[in-house]
Amino acid sequence: MTTRTPGGPTPQDGISRRAALGILGAGTAGAGFAAGAATTASFATQASSDGDPRDAYPFYGEHQAGITTPVQDRLHFAAFDLTSTATRDDLIQLLKDWTDAAAAMTQGREVGDGAVDGAPLLPPDDTGEALGLPPSGLTITIGVGPTLFDERFGLADRKPTDLEPLPLFAFDLLEESISGGDLCVQACAHDPQVAVHAIRNLTRLAFGTARIRWSQLGFGRTSSTSTHQATPRNLFGFKDGTANLKSEEPAAVDEFVWVGDEDQNWMSGGTYLVTRKIVMTIENWDRVSLAEQEDIVGRSKGEGAPLSGSAEFDDPDFELGTTDGGKVIPVDSHVRLAHPTTSGTRILRRGYNFVDGSNALGQLDAGLFFISMQRSPAQFSAVQRSLATDTMNEYIRHVSSAVFAIPPGATQGSYVGAGLFD
Amino acid sequence: MTTRTPGGPTPQDGISRRAALGILGAGTAGAGFAAGAATTASFATQASSDGDPRDAYPFYGEHQAGITTPVQDRLHFAAFDLTSTATRDDLIQLLKDWTDAAAAMTQGREVGDGAVDGAPLLPPDDTGEALGLPPSGLTITIGVGPTLFDERFGLADRKPTDLEPLPLFAFDLLEESISGGDLCVQACAHDPQVAVHAIRNLTRLAFGTARIRWSQLGFGRTSSTSTHQATPRNLFGFKDGTANLKSEEPAAVDEFVWVGDEDQNWMSGGTYLVTRKIVMTIENWDRVSLAEQEDIVGRSKGEGAPLSGSAEFDDPDFELGTTDGGKVIPVDSHVRLAHPTTSGTRILRRGYNFVDGSNALGQLDAGLFFISMQRSPAQFSAVQRSLATDTMNEYIRHVSSAVFAIPPGATQGSYVGAGLFD
Repeated sequence: MTTRTPGGPTPQDGISRRAALGILGAGTAGAGFAAGAATTASFATQASSDGDPRDAYPFYGEHQAGITTPVQDRLHFAAFDLTSTATRDDLIQLLKDWTDAAAAMTQGREVGDGAVDGAPLLPPDDTGEALGLPPSGLTITIGVGPTLFDERFGLADRKPTDLEPLPLFAFDLLEESISGGDLCVQACAHDPQVAVHAIRNLTRLAFGTARIRWSQLGFGRTSSTSTHQATPRNLFGFKDGTANLKSEEPAAVDEFVWVGDEDQNWMSGGTYLVTRKIVMTIENWDRVSLAEQEDIVGRSKGEGAPLSGSAEFDDPDFELGTTDGGKVIPVDSHVRLAHPTTSGTRILRRGYNFVDGSNALGQLDAGLFFISMQRSPAQFSAVQRSLATDTMNEYIRHVSSAVFAIPPGATQGSYVGAGLFD
Repeated sequence: MTTRTPGGPTPQDGISRRAALGILGAGTAGAGFAAGAATTASFATQASSDGDPRDAYPFYGEHQAGITTPVQDRLHFAAFDLTSTATRDDLIQLLKDWTDAAAAMTQGREVGDGAVDGAPLLPPDDTGEALGLPPSGLTITIGVGPTLFDERFGLADRKPTDLEPLPLFAFDLLEESISGGDLCVQACAHDPQVAVHAIRNLTRLAFGTARIRWSQLGFGRTSSTSTHQATPRNLFGFKDGTANLKSEEPAAVDEFVWVGDEDQNWMSGGTYLVTRKIVMTIENWDRVSLAEQEDIVGRSKGEGAPLSGSAEFDDPDFELGTTDGGKVIPVDSHVRLAHPTTSGTRILRRGYNFVDGSNALGQLDAGLFFISMQRSPAQFSAVQRSLATDTMNEYIRHVSSAVFAIPPGATQGSYVGAGLFD
């Protein structure tokens, strides 16, 4: 078993985390992208499965794993609600149980003691479907939703100001039953059986205290969080996440991902996680001409280069004009509106392609389960507001929305979220 | 790119396919299992991902690939209905288009010509999300359902006698909307993005002629079809498919899988594919004691050994008695009732674990998408009838059912199902 650090270098280089919350000037953005381009220009092909099954990321640490960790290929994400009889002590016990189980499973061990052949007259501690499987790069990331801070658990005064349900955005068509949640667990792994096993066993530990509100599988990552990863493609067939924040940019990660001392104390070293289930009407998309698809995205389909350039990691030139007075990268293209120079901020994307079978119209129920990590949900909102005029909106619907505060990592002997109850 | 044969040796050794249709004596079964045990006793751990991304299985050949091919890790299965205006010629054209596209995609090529950067003013021929991905062991297996042989396409006299919707079995709770279908496509690959890309592009080629009736993703194989594969675990946490038919038993594969000359001429060298979506009530299962779980399955949970033995590939001894007059392998255990000595036949299983999110009760919507291949659907029915008293039935529900005739493989220049229209 190889043990690797959960991402790039841990930011201990003295760079202040008190920088302005996610708002930057064009100059800073340019520098960030230039650095990215210099180290990643050699990627030509998509590598779907670039993780070693023996990967085992440490569970304990300054930050939770599953944030800057190189994005694993498979996802099982679950949101939970506390049951009506759950107490503050039940919640604390649940977070302790989850921490212990997550620490074991991420190292390739089963939940509990003598999991399988121990006590014949009791149910096994571990459900068993991952027996014999390697750690497979499993990370388990635990978060708390806005509703946890109501009157039930005495946590109202610990609520971060920015932890509120996201505002309604243009083209939102949200379903309440698959939005929100008191708690969340993000399980990512190279092997879906390992990710599913993790969610199932944490769900089982929650029996009587919390139940799943909704859950989502993702079969393929749609971004990279390391310059060592090739850029994957989304279900529009385009490379996605080329300009994503990378763990090899520690100053930018510090500035845009990790919470500093501007927030609740218990959130220092944490981050905020946003999920958006984005259904793509891929049958309609597939009938759009190549030129129009590329104008909508603002990049070429094959190479993934900005329309102003020729290679994937070329910096987009948003000023470059066409002979008829327009812009080579159209003003309502996705790449322009999502770009820091337009949105004014950056986020760390960690989303997944999904296909949930097909719908009653005989269309694939498919799209992007978007996940982003940021120092404040306000960063996501800034990007999403910028996308209001995105021509891509014709082909997508946001059907679920959730936001969770991700506490910092736990130290051995403690548990995730302990700071909430100090 | 490595090219491998789609399974074990092609059965050209002169063994007659006219043997009695799937009914055998205990002696024959014993011999088959002994051979299996001799070659597979060294498997100790589960290997989830034992395929090389460069694997490319030939599409053309005596049999379709995806049957005896070593089971890939990921599945996208789709059933299609012809549209109300589709003609016999449309059906033929669709099968030709699917054949050409499948031949390209299984070799890691895109659908069509100049797929991505060709004609800017047209939609791309290929949807693009698999660009840059290796073949990933993709197989595409095409079948035809009972309803195709009604009055619409002049095929009534080509209908195989045994191609009928399966009878209702004990504990069936079937949903019509996810059962049956005029056509089916099974796409299996090491990479889910490659399997999804295949179904999507074949669906797109069908536009106006056929539409998806239902589709299902599976994230992990629950059986092996080669002695070179480790035995995976199902969502009950038990090893599954230990005693499955293996491609290394060509005589048994000939006897139990490939159609001979007893059927319609166009089915010679084909097989029958049965799908059953089996929902597992895993939350209930997880609260059952280890001893009871093992009595229900008839095998130990850790090793997967029959309760009468100590190692996974030990032959089960169904006669071994307990001191209180019972049997060590209980009479209503799954392994006994599914075993050839009880059911009287064998089938080639090729199923997948699935999790489709969660249901309104906060339970995972999870289970086994069962797929089996057999010379006649009667073999599946014999096994399923034998399972009527299976104590496992308390924890499962069959919610969908389908049966398809799988024509033999196509020769280059022809197409799958051509024999139907001779």
